[in-house]
Amino acid sequence: MTQSEREKVKSEAAALIKKSGIYLNRQEEENLEITDFGLGDFYSQGLVLHTYVNTERACAKELAMFPGQTCVEHRHPPLGAGNPGKEETFRCRYGEMYLYVAGEATAGIKAKLPETKNGYTAFCEVVLRQGDQYTLAPDTLHWFQAGPQGAVVSEFSSHSDDGSDIFTDPAVVRSGSPTAG
Amino acid sequence: MTQSEREKVKSEAAALIKKSGIYLNRQEEENLEITDFGLGDFYSQGLVLHTYVNTERACAKELAMFPGQTCVEHRHPPLGAGNPGKEETFRCRYGEMYLYVAGEATAGIKAKLPETKNGYTAFCEVVLRQGDQYTLAPDTLHWFQAGPQGAVVSEFSSHSDDGSDIFTDPAVVRSGSPTAG
Repeated sequence: MTQSEREKVKSEAAALIKKSGIYLNRQEEENLEITDFGLGDFYSQGLVLHTYVNTERACAKELAMFPGQTCVEHRHPPLGAGNPGKEETFRCRYGEMYLYVAGEATAGIKAKLPETKNGYTAFCEVVLRQGDQYTLAPDTLHWFQAGPQGAVVSEFSSHSDDGSDIFTDPAVVRSGSPTAG
Repeated sequence: MTQSEREKVKSEAAALIKKSGIYLNRQEEENLEITDFGLGDFYSQGLVLHTYVNTERACAKELAMFPGQTCVEHRHPPLGAGNPGKEETFRCRYGEMYLYVAGEATAGIKAKLPETKNGYTAFCEVVLRQGDQYTLAPDTLHWFQAGPQGAVVSEFSSHSDDGSDIFTDPAVVRSGSPTAG
């Protein structure tokens, strides 16, 4: 992604977050993290994030997604004794989020798989609209897609360590800032 | 507090939260937790809370405070091996929050002590306006007061266990729902 493409994405994501009622200051908007998961097709598979805080114990983020955009399937594995992996709660602030987790597949899911169709195996659907939330157990395969208006979703979790995430599609490379995602 | 007083407080707090841009659904507004810390003067020393989630590992809440209202001084003590006590981050969404933590006392603080003046010993001031945040280390004495417009503040933390909080004023009794606060 070129610098000017990144600036455009940041500006669009900042507008989406503003629309959700969540206030970020100018510096936070400037520092928004953008990832295309190394797949080179950001508006299809990508994510914009703001990390409020990420300590050894707790983490909070805001996720912004464009209409139909997908966050690729992954899981947060156990990280040694006493750490079963990241546990996260998604709270929808704006739009709709179609979340897919490991479990019995839902017939006729709302999401449309990205064109590549690679790396999607979890099809138990959870639809989150404004004010809905879902807590995901550690080490659970999941992916999600925004509805037609896009989505802004708060994530409340234990410590976040993106470097340890395991992606179903081996082509995925998690890019972005070292602290966030 | 009578039932009708509680309903009035809930309705006012829901309006304040709405003003901050944070959406709660009808049921969440109905379930807002109200505490006067057992001191019987809610608008002076009290707090309204919504708990999004509180697992063994992570917790997220929304705090609503009326103009000049104070959350009494307390700390979150260590709770056995591997738990140094609750760590929390306050993120101001609306209004101003005057936060006081243990440390060098600030001259000419913005807050006005509640009339009783009992139980306030930490006077190192941190002012949080919309978009500002502060992470408090476990076991740190702290209290806070809303500015003239009131305040809505998100709290991101490790597990919350109100029953173990230690209050400086021995008259304080933490009332509210068993899961939140």
